[in-house]
Amino acid sequence: MAPAFLRTPSHATRTKIMTELAVCLTPSLIPLFEVENYIVVVIDIFRATSSICYGIENGAEAIIPVAEVEECLAFQEKHPDYLLAAERNGEVVSGFNFSNSPFSYTKEKVAGRTIVLTTTNGTNALHLSRKAKKIIIGSFLNLTSICNWLKKQNENTLLVCAGWKNNFNLEDTLFAGAIADRLKGSGFILDDAAIAAYDLFQVGKSDIPAYLAKTSHSGRLKKLGIEKDIAFCLQVDITTAIPILADDKLVKLV
Amino acid sequence: MAPAFLRTPSHATRTKIMTELAVCLTPSLIPLFEVENYIVVVIDIFRATSSICYGIENGAEAIIPVAEVEECLAFQEKHPDYLLAAERNGEVVSGFNFSNSPFSYTKEKVAGRTIVLTTTNGTNALHLSRKAKKIIIGSFLNLTSICNWLKKQNENTLLVCAGWKNNFNLEDTLFAGAIADRLKGSGFILDDAAIAAYDLFQVGKSDIPAYLAKTSHSGRLKKLGIEKDIAFCLQVDITTAIPILADDKLVKLV
Repeated sequence: MAPAFLRTPSHATRTKIMTELAVCLTPSLIPLFEVENYIVVVIDIFRATSSICYGIENGAEAIIPVAEVEECLAFQEKHPDYLLAAERNGEVVSGFNFSNSPFSYTKEKVAGRTIVLTTTNGTNALHLSRKAKKIIIGSFLNLTSICNWLKKQNENTLLVCAGWKNNFNLEDTLFAGAIADRLKGSGFILDDAAIAAYDLFQVGKSDIPAYLAKTSHSGRLKKLGIEKDIAFCLQVDITTAIPILADDKLVKLV
Repeated sequence: MAPAFLRTPSHATRTKIMTELAVCLTPSLIPLFEVENYIVVVIDIFRATSSICYGIENGAEAIIPVAEVEECLAFQEKHPDYLLAAERNGEVVSGFNFSNSPFSYTKEKVAGRTIVLTTTNGTNALHLSRKAKKIIIGSFLNLTSICNWLKKQNENTLLVCAGWKNNFNLEDTLFAGAIADRLKGSGFILDDAAIAAYDLFQVGKSDIPAYLAKTSHSGRLKKLGIEKDIAFCLQVDITTAIPILADDKLVKLV
């Protein structure tokens, strides 16, 4: 008799009867997926998607993700009341209201406001995913909320890790693994990258900050003096709002 | 005092004093690396690089990797004595001598012969890496041999996973993790993808066949009826030869 691993039914066979949970490890790989067949969750833990979740939770009317700093400026000309957030290589762009720090997205600062946001990696992932069925924003902050919603949708789901300059990073993949951990028992079948993310989450989940201490990005962020941001972004379930893309704006899913 | 993970020195700082071990998770990501600064190890466990290691061990004079079936045929016209191996989507191309099965690369069949090989994923990874300082071929079959050699070189090293149709696969990454496991204590500093591969190898190493039973590819290969090939490719250290690219041919490193 063939060993157990050879008796596993093929991926093709399994996906006919189950919902797929796939992980796209970097934006470079998005073209390999037919995103129009998926609900996409965009993940940029340090710090874009964490800040977006916090801002929408705190009553921001909308957050508009744009790819270039110049686009941010164009919005300001038309809408002087918009707040502008721009970051390149992890640093605030001179002359803008604020960067990607979640501490910029408090109730006092963002309630009722529209924010135009450009980031190095997160908005790139959003733009490349724009043909998806739906695009929502995930972070440790709203983990349970998005997982409960994804279970209800029961649609093929693609977790898009923003990564770092189009390459793999550990923190976004670890968070993809946290989602896989919640969805695995709910009828979702995992692709190879989702299996890897799931297994990495099992390795790291008992102490996520310590696990991510190994990453290159924690060193980069430390140089930028944003240690508090890192700790903030690793808090689990302090928000429930789900940001969803609607007409090129991220708004609260209702 | 900052928590431990914030006291880690930055990646940039560390690479100045240590040798880098990076993992390129799919050929799609090769353009993100300056491959000319690295020794590259190409990895396509099921089955191209396993078969190449076995063929070179068994005395093949050279194995010529080509990207297209048509190129294979062009070689045959000039060199009727060459053996032709061609595979597309895991199946032998009609009219060719053999495919990627390691059982085609026995002493009896390949000693003293030159083989022209085209595969779906492995040769793609080789071609995209061709500007590297050196390119060697890795598999579980020659794991210890290549790791000992890499330690002696003490050069920045990039492990290129051939993946599946330009996307991530678990078996190639697991093997990258096996290399990382051997090199980690020898002055190499791991990038995020190498850390992930290392951790996945820790999860899977006690029973690699069982671990890889979870992958999509084991299902695909089972459909092709090549269960024996899978078991063969997961044997550790049955060969010592290191295939190296020299003038567009893979030959035995001497």
